Amino acid sequence: MAARSGRDTVNMADFEAAIDRVMAGPEKKNRVLGPEEKRRVAFHEAGHALVAENVPTGQPVHKISIIPRGVSALGFTLQLPVEEKYLSTEPELKDQLAILLGGRVAEQLALGSASTGAQNDLEKATEIARNMICYLGMSEKLGPLIYGHRQQLQFLSGDVTEQRNYSEETAQVVDAEIKALIEEAQQRAVVILTSKRPQLEQLAELLQDKEVVQREEIMALLQANV
Amino acid sequence: MAARSGRDTVNMADFEAAIDRVMAGPEKKNRVLGPEEKRRVAFHEAGHALVAENVPTGQPVHKISIIPRGVSALGFTLQLPVEEKYLSTEPELKDQLAILLGGRVAEQLALGSASTGAQNDLEKATEIARNMICYLGMSEKLGPLIYGHRQQLQFLSGDVTEQRNYSEETAQVVDAEIKALIEEAQQRAVVILTSKRPQLEQLAELLQDKEVVQREEIMALLQANV
Amino acid sequence: MAARSGRDTVNMADFEAAIDRVMAGPEKKNRVLGPEEKRRVAFHEAGHALVAENVPTGQPVHKISIIPRGVSALGFTLQLPVEEKYLSTEPELKDQLAILLGGRVAEQLALGSASTGAQNDLEKATEIARNMICYLGMSEKLGPLIYGHRQQLQFLSGDVTEQRNYSEETAQVVDAEIKALIEEAQQRAVVILTSKRPQLEQLAELLQDKEVVQREEIMALLQANV
Amino acid sequence: MAARSGRDTVNMADFEAAIDRVMAGPEKKNRVLGPEEKRRVAFHEAGHALVAENVPTGQPVHKISIIPRGVSALGFTLQLPVEEKYLSTEPELKDQLAILLGGRVAEQLALGSASTGAQNDLEKATEIARNMICYLGMSEKLGPLIYGHRQQLQFLSGDVTEQRNYSEETAQVVDAEIKALIEEAQQRAVVILTSKRPQLEQLAELLQDKEVVQREEIMALLQANV
Amino acid sequence: MAARSGRDTVNMADFEAAIDRVMAGPEKKNRVLGPEEKRRVAFHEAGHALVAENVPTGQPVHKISIIPRGVSALGFTLQLPVEEKYLSTEPELKDQLAILLGGRVAEQLALGSASTGAQNDLEKATEIARNMICYLGMSEKLGPLIYGHRQQLQFLSGDVTEQRNYSEETAQVVDAEIKALIEEAQQRAVVILTSKRPQLEQLAELLQDKEVVQREEIMALLQANV
Amino acid sequence: MAARSGRDTVNMADFEAAIDRVMAGPEKKNRVLGPEEKRRVAFHEAGHALVAENVPTGQPVHKISIIPRGVSALGFTLQLPVEEKYLSTEPELKDQLAILLGGRVAEQLALGSASTGAQNDLEKATEIARNMICYLGMSEKLGPLIYGHRQQLQFLSGDVTEQRNYSEETAQVVDAEIKALIEEAQQRAVVILTSKRPQLEQLAELLQDKEVVQREEIMALLQANV
Repeated sequence: MAARSGRDTVNMADFEAAIDRVMAGPEKKNRVLGPEEKRRVAFHEAGHALVAENVPTGQPVHKISIIPRGVSALGFTLQLPVEEKYLSTEPELKDQLAILLGGRVAEQLALGSASTGAQNDLEKATEIARNMICYLGMSEKLGPLIYGHRQQLQFLSGDVTEQRNYSEETAQVVDAEIKALIEEAQQRAVVILTSKRPQLEQLAELLQDKEVVQREEIMALLQANV
Repeated sequence: MAARSGRDTVNMADFEAAIDRVMAGPEKKNRVLGPEEKRRVAFHEAGHALVAENVPTGQPVHKISIIPRGVSALGFTLQLPVEEKYLSTEPELKDQLAILLGGRVAEQLALGSASTGAQNDLEKATEIARNMICYLGMSEKLGPLIYGHRQQLQFLSGDVTEQRNYSEETAQVVDAEIKALIEEAQQRAVVILTSKRPQLEQLAELLQDKEVVQREEIMALLQANV
Repeated sequence: MAARSGRDTVNMADFEAAIDRVMAGPEKKNRVLGPEEKRRVAFHEAGHALVAENVPTGQPVHKISIIPRGVSALGFTLQLPVEEKYLSTEPELKDQLAILLGGRVAEQLALGSASTGAQNDLEKATEIARNMICYLGMSEKLGPLIYGHRQQLQFLSGDVTEQRNYSEETAQVVDAEIKALIEEAQQRAVVILTSKRPQLEQLAELLQDKEVVQREEIMALLQANV
Repeated sequence: MAARSGRDTVNMADFEAAIDRVMAGPEKKNRVLGPEEKRRVAFHEAGHALVAENVPTGQPVHKISIIPRGVSALGFTLQLPVEEKYLSTEPELKDQLAILLGGRVAEQLALGSASTGAQNDLEKATEIARNMICYLGMSEKLGPLIYGHRQQLQFLSGDVTEQRNYSEETAQVVDAEIKALIEEAQQRAVVILTSKRPQLEQLAELLQDKEVVQREEIMALLQANV
Repeated sequence: MAARSGRDTVNMADFEAAIDRVMAGPEKKNRVLGPEEKRRVAFHEAGHALVAENVPTGQPVHKISIIPRGVSALGFTLQLPVEEKYLSTEPELKDQLAILLGGRVAEQLALGSASTGAQNDLEKATEIARNMICYLGMSEKLGPLIYGHRQQLQFLSGDVTEQRNYSEETAQVVDAEIKALIEEAQQRAVVILTSKRPQLEQLAELLQDKEVVQREEIMALLQANV
Repeated sequence: MAARSGRDTVNMADFEAAIDRVMAGPEKKNRVLGPEEKRRVAFHEAGHALVAENVPTGQPVHKISIIPRGVSALGFTLQLPVEEKYLSTEPELKDQLAILLGGRVAEQLALGSASTGAQNDLEKATEIARNMICYLGMSEKLGPLIYGHRQQLQFLSGDVTEQRNYSEETAQVVDAEIKALIEEAQQRAVVILTSKRPQLEQLAELLQDKEVVQREEIMALLQANV
C-alpha cells in the first residue's frame, strides 16, 4: 500500500497540532537533534526498514535518512515499488500495518519507551485498519458491508468527515476489530524486530553515524547478519 | 435493478477518497495493469457476470471489459435489460445484491483474498440493502415502516444526509437486518461461483487474453460448460 | 385525512432519490409500462381503492388511473370528500393508514412480493403514525405529550427537521408505538383485501384493460360482488 | 400563566406544519365548519372554559368563540386577568396545564375520541411542564437545578434551540417527570369535566347555537347548574 | 464569587425567553407589582440577604431593593466586597451557591411554593456547580480533571457552547455530583433561614414597607434579633 | 514537554471565560493581590517548582514570580531546558503532568483547599493526558491506536474540534485511562510535596517576601534543606 513511486513510510511529521499547542515553544527553521533524540529517530527508522524487509509483500527499502527536513519530518524510510499498483490486497494491507508500527516498536525495544514521534504512524495505521474493517469488508464478524458514511466537509478542502450510521452495539464490534488488526500488526513487528535485534542495533548505529543510508549498505548489513 | 439502458455493474472506481489519501502516490492518465492485477480484475468481472447469468431475474450480460477507463474504473460488466423498468421487486433487489457481491467472492475463491477493488460494489450493495430495510419495508422484523429521514444537504449538491430518527435498540435491529441481507447474497454468490468454478476460470482466462469479451463469446463459453 | 378536494392517495412517485441514484439509468419523458409492471400498478391502485371503500371513515373513490403522469407517478386513486374538513379524529387517521398500506398489501397478496412502488405510501403512513404518537398524544403509553421538537431548517425551504428531546428509553417506546399503529393498519388492509379478493382481481383486471376507471364502474363492480 | 391582557387559551391553530404537509389540499380563506366539526370545537372550547372556572387560580373566562379566525384558529376561550402578573407560582402553572388539557379531555368525554385540534394545546402544555421540570426546579427528584442549555439559533429569529447537557439516565427522569405533570393535569381535567358534565353539554350546546358566548351567559349557565 | 465591585445577587431577570414565549402578553415599561407579588419578591430578597450574612465567606449586604428596574429585574440584593478578589476557593464557591438558593428557599418557607422568579438564580447556581465539578476538579469522584470542552460559538457573541467529550457513564457521575452540590447548598439555606425565621419575616416586612433597605437598617434588624 | 525555550508552567491565566461570566465584575489593569491571595499564589508556584526539581526529567527552575502580569497571569514558574527538544517520551510526559498538578496540590496541603487558580493547569494536564491515551498509544488497555478525529473548526482560528469516532464502551475506557494518568500524577505530587514540606513553606515565604525568586536563591534553599 505504501508502494507506487516512493513515499515516506514514516515522516514523523505533524506532532499533531493539539500537542504542539500544549508544547508551545518556538519553531526553528534549521533543526539540530540532540544525541539522545538522534538515537531515538535512528532506531525508529531502522524499525520501519527492518519490518519492511521481513514481511511477505514489503517493497524493498531504497534509502533511510534521519536528517530533519522541512517543517516536521525528523527522518524517513523510502521504499521503492517494483511496479505500479492500483489495487491492494488484504495481506498487503496487513503488512503495511506492521511496517507502520515497526518504528514505535523499535523505540520500545531498544530504548524502553515510546515517544511522540510515532503519532503520525499511528494515525496512518488506524486509518488503514478502519478502512479494512469499515469500507473493505475485511472483518469476519462485520461481513462485506460498508459501515459509516463519508462526506467531504467543504468543497475543495479535502477534509473528510465520517458519519456513523450504525448502532452502539455495532460500534463496539468495529472498535474491537480495528484494535485487533493493529495489535496483531504490532505483535508481528515485535516478533520480527526481536528476532532481528542485532541488525536493528547495527542499522541504528549506521544511521547515527552516516545520517543517510542507501540500499546497498542496507543489503550488505542484512546479508552480513543472515 | 442494475438494469435499464446498460451501466457498469462494477466500475471498480473510487478507491474511496480516504484510502487514496493514505496511498498518496501520483495518478497516471494511461494506466497499465501489471499481470497480477489484471488477473484479479478478470476474476472480479467474471464473478459479476456469472452470478448475473445464474440468478432468476439477472439481465443478460452484454459485454465484459478489463481495459481501465477514465479516472478510476479498472473493468466493467455490462448488462442489457429486456425492457424499460420503473419498479423493482424484492426478489430483483436480492438478485442484484448477489451480482454485486459476485466480483469480490470470485477474487476470494480464485485468488484467496479480497482486495480494495470491491469497495465500490460493497457501497452499492450496502445502499440497496439499507433501502430495502429502511425505506421499502422489506424486513419482517421492522415492518412496513420508514426508518430514518433523508435530506439533501445542500441545494444542487445531490449529496444526501440521513438523519436517524429511531432508538438505539431499533438501530441494532436495522444493522442486523442489513447484514443478514448482504450475507445471504454473498452466500448465494459463493454457491453459484463454486458450482460454476470451471466457467469462472475459463471466463477469467478469456478476459486476460482478449480484455474485452462480447455476449456471443460469453454464451458460447456458458453453453460449452453446461 | 387524504380527503379535501381530492389528491393522489398513491402517486407511486419519488422512488426515493437515493434508490434512483443506485438505479442510475436514463429518465424518459413518455413512460410506457411493460405488462408485468402495469399489472403490479393495477393491483396496487385496486388495493388502495378497495380499502378506502371498506373502512368506516373512507371517502368515496372517484377515479382510479394507471396512466403514468408527470415525473414519477405511475398511477393514482382519487377520493372525493363529502365536505371540507379542518380536523381529523383518531379513527379517521387510523383508516387513512389502512388505505395507504392497501396498495402494498394488494401487491403482496396478488403477486407474492412487495416492490419499490410502495415507498411513497410507507413514507406518508410513517409520517401520519409518528404525528399521532409524538404530536397528537394518541398513544396510551406515552400520554398527551409532545415528543420531539420540529423546526424549519431554512427559511422558505419548507424542509422540517425534527430534534429529539427525549431519552433513549422513551425513544424505544416511540418506535414500538409507531410500529404497532402501522402493523395494525396493515393487518386491517390484509383482512379487507383477503375477504374482497374477487373484487380485487376484477378491479385490477378492469384497470389493466381500461387504464382509467370511474366511480360508476367501481360502484357497479362492488355491488355485483356483494 | 395564560393571564395578562387576554389571549387565546386555545387557538387551535397551527395543525403543525408537518401534518399540513401530509394533508396537502387547498387552504380556504373563509372557512365554514361542518356541523360535526363545529360540535367538536364547541366541546373543546367549553372544556377549556369549565376547567378554567374550576381550578383555584384560574382567571375568569370573558368570552368563548367558535368562529374560525385568520389562518388557523377554529375557536378560542378568552380569560381576563384581575391584575398584571410578573411571576407565576407552581400551583398557578399546574392549573394552567389542566386548563390546556381541558379541551382535549372534553372531546374525548363527549365525542369518544381526540382529534388533531388539540395539538397546539399539547405543545403549550409540554413546554410549560418542561420549563417547570428543567428550568424552574419544580421536580422533587431532579432538585433546584437547570437541566439543558437554551440558545437562540439565529439572531432575531426568536427560535430557541435546547442543548441537552445531562446524561441518558437523567434524561429518563426528565421524561418521566414531565409526563407525570401532564398526566396529573389531564386527570384533574377529567375529574372536573366529569363532575360538570351537564354544564359541559349545555355550554357546548350554547356555543353551537350562538357561536360567541359572553361572560354573563357563562355565569348564568354556571350558576343555574350549581 | 459574587464579590468584586458589587452586583445583583438576584436580579430576577430574564424569565427565560421560552417561558416568555408561552406567557406571551405585552411588556410594560413601568411595572407595578401587585401586593402578593411584592410580598413574594420581598421574601425572596430577604432570603438572599440573610443567607449571605450567615455563611462564613459571605460579603456584607449593602442594600436590598424591590423596586422593579429595567427590563426584567424585580428586585436585587447588593453585596460589597471588602477587597478586590482574583481567586475563589472551594468554600467560597459553596457559600455562593447557598446565597443563590436562599431566595427560592425563602419563598418556599414563607409562602409555601416556589415561583418563576428563581429561574435566574438556578441558572447561576447550576453554572457555578458545573464549573466546580467539570472545570475546577472539585469533585472527589471525578478527580482533578477537565470534563467537557468549551468554545465560543461565534466571534464576538460571547455565547459559549460546551462539547461533551466523555462517556455516558461519566456523564451520570457529573450529573450526580452537580446535583449533590446544589442540594447541599439548598439544605444549608434551609437550615439558616429556618433558624432565622423571625429575621426573615421582619426583613421582608421592612422591604414591603420601604422598598429599599440600606446596610444600617439591615444591621439594626440583625442585631435586634440575636 | 514544557521544555524548549522557556514558558510559563503555570500562568494561572484564563479563569475560563464561562467562570468570568458568572463572576462578572470589572477587570482592572493594575492588579494588586490581597495578602491572602498572594499567599495562595506563592504556595501554588512553589508547588510547581518543587515538583519540577524532584521528578527525573524535570528541567531546572530558572525563576519564579508572583507579580501579576498582563490580563490574567497571577504568577509563573519558568523552567529552562538544557537543549532543544523535538520529541517527548512517555516518562517525560508523566513528569510534566506531576509538575502541572503540583500547584494545586500545594494549595491543598498548605491552605486546606483548592481554588479557581488551578483551572489552567488542569486544562493543560487533561489535554496532555488525553493526547497520551488517544493520540500516542500510551495506554496498555487501548493499544497503539488513534481514538478520535481532530479537525480545525475554522480556517485560521486555530481552534480544534475533536470528533468521537468510537463506541460508548470504548469512551468509558478512555475516560478511566485519562483519569488514572492524572490521579497517578497528583499522587506523585502529593508524595513529593509532603516529603518536602519544609522547603515548600520556605519557598512560599520567600516568594511572598520578594515576589521574584531567581535560580541561585532556589538552589540555595533546596541545598540548605537536604
